[in-house]
Amino acid sequence: MSGIDALNSVRMVDGSSLTRRVTVSPGMCSSGSQIFGRIGDWTWEAVSAACGMNAHAATTADGRPAYLSFYYYRVRGGKTVHPHGLTFGDELRVCSRVFQIGSQSTLTLHRLAPAGLTVPEGPLDPEEVYERPHPDCMYAENFNRWIARSTPGSNQRLSEVTPPDFAYADLPRLPNRHSPRTPVGRARAAGSFYAEPPQGFVPAGPAHTTPYTLDVVRDLNGVGLVYFASYFSIFDTVLLGLWRSQGRSDEQFLRRKVAQQKVGYFGNADPGAALTISVNRWRSETAPDLEIADMAMHDAATNRLLAVTGIELEATPVPSPNA
Amino acid sequence: MSGIDALNSVRMVDGSSLTRRVTVSPGMCSSGSQIFGRIGDWTWEAVSAACGMNAHAATTADGRPAYLSFYYYRVRGGKTVHPHGLTFGDELRVCSRVFQIGSQSTLTLHRLAPAGLTVPEGPLDPEEVYERPHPDCMYAENFNRWIARSTPGSNQRLSEVTPPDFAYADLPRLPNRHSPRTPVGRARAAGSFYAEPPQGFVPAGPAHTTPYTLDVVRDLNGVGLVYFASYFSIFDTVLLGLWRSQGRSDEQFLRRKVAQQKVGYFGNADPGAALTISVNRWRSETAPDLEIADMAMHDAATNRLLAVTGIELEATPVPSPNA
Repeated sequence: MSGIDALNSVRMVDGSSLTRRVTVSPGMCSSGSQIFGRIGDWTWEAVSAACGMNAHAATTADGRPAYLSFYYYRVRGGKTVHPHGLTFGDELRVCSRVFQIGSQSTLTLHRLAPAGLTVPEGPLDPEEVYERPHPDCMYAENFNRWIARSTPGSNQRLSEVTPPDFAYADLPRLPNRHSPRTPVGRARAAGSFYAEPPQGFVPAGPAHTTPYTLDVVRDLNGVGLVYFASYFSIFDTVLLGLWRSQGRSDEQFLRRKVAQQKVGYFGNADPGAALTISVNRWRSETAPDLEIADMAMHDAATNRLLAVTGIELEATPVPSPNA
Repeated sequence: MSGIDALNSVRMVDGSSLTRRVTVSPGMCSSGSQIFGRIGDWTWEAVSAACGMNAHAATTADGRPAYLSFYYYRVRGGKTVHPHGLTFGDELRVCSRVFQIGSQSTLTLHRLAPAGLTVPEGPLDPEEVYERPHPDCMYAENFNRWIARSTPGSNQRLSEVTPPDFAYADLPRLPNRHSPRTPVGRARAAGSFYAEPPQGFVPAGPAHTTPYTLDVVRDLNGVGLVYFASYFSIFDTVLLGLWRSQGRSDEQFLRRKVAQQKVGYFGNADPGAALTISVNRWRSETAPDLEIADMAMHDAATNRLLAVTGIELEATPVPSPNA
């Protein structure tokens, strides 16, 4: 095997599954949204392979660009592999599998395992992801829907579409009990993943609302829509501001450990749009470093709900630099 | 060839060269720095392959992490492929080649060609990159130096190092006349790539200085250093502000066409550092949409020069959304 194959390689396991060896590069890791963006690229690649199409260049029946947009993104951090804990040179074995979830959508699951860990061979089993996650691994769940712009040049109204070459019939079905449709629909209706306050947690300070103006340099993707990974950065920007206001250091933020994060994407916005981000935070009754941040993003002008997130995280102690 | 191989594949052409097929994904394109980050990942991958090492996990002789840091990054946009003109599904053929440039450095050249274009087979010829670039292609030049932190936890003083397994002796030599060492050294000494005002251009407004605070969410990489691609975003943020102040629209910024950009990296900074960005702009005497932005980044507290950039770009007209 040549040097280049040793670093990165990808192959199909079966008609709906990919496995890849990954050496974590600068473009894949940070305290920000890099890993979420890279996993999203893997989702598009997995859907392309599993559905025998090029998801990157999809069109509607009448020839308009169709995008495999992110509707729901969940990530579960493990003890060894977690979103902001990756660093240059980490070796991962990534398994990805695409599932059927209606005629206009896909559901893609990923397991990011440390390269040396023994994990089950073969296609990724939903039971593992939802019920028996390996404690060392990170998992991601991407629920994507095909959309197109209703009005050229506007990000305000995006409609669901079906690219004619989207072949989903042969994809495996996700057991109904694991479908995120109902919980995500509830989060959309409630404007929160925590319509019920989380058990074992108490409020950490009053609710808080912050303005945010879309960053034209950083928040838009290559087709001019707000980039799904930027939603993570926007929410994190607000969280960092809150942490600072409570005396936590930037170093502590950089070392935060995300146990779980969910993002529901319900709308997009035009460049320069003014947004508001509202936040509720809870902390564990028993472990004060464990907290939950519950945030919602609205268009400031119309109050349209654009996204919600729930972040379960741990503010780990900061070691001495000489340790 | 399976669906996944059709999307992306990489192979070695010779001991110092890689070629890859790329389908542009959301994580590779935007009006921001995504493509610069991805090319940087290809540089690390190419160096790893060409030098028979894992550049992502390099260490010094005494076991400290060593990073293949970016010292100089030049990109030349083509008519078809240019940095902010890529979109989902674009098909590229990328050729990369690593050259010897001293015992602690590498120089990597990349050509990003449209997939259907006939380009020379075989290793990338420096003459093509420096003297006969194909007008449709984009080229990138990455001059990287091995560095390590002098003080654990601090980004202030980074020293040049040589990882013991860095095997550079078999790399091809770059003809001396193409070496960027001298022009980059001059830019460092002058604080600008334009110590002499560019010919055929006239000043576009007075010099301008803007404060910038490092963004803890977005500007740091997976080892806590300011990410090389973020320097592009920081400079672009300042440029956007200037364009807005002159009545140009965000849409025009998003559609800007970069003909050439150079970045010299001379220092790093700690999270939360306060920076200043100074800007000089020129516009073409004959084509008012052609301009040059000359910017320098300093640490606000010490006035230490951290980076300079020169951007030659075109503010293209914005078409009607219904066109």
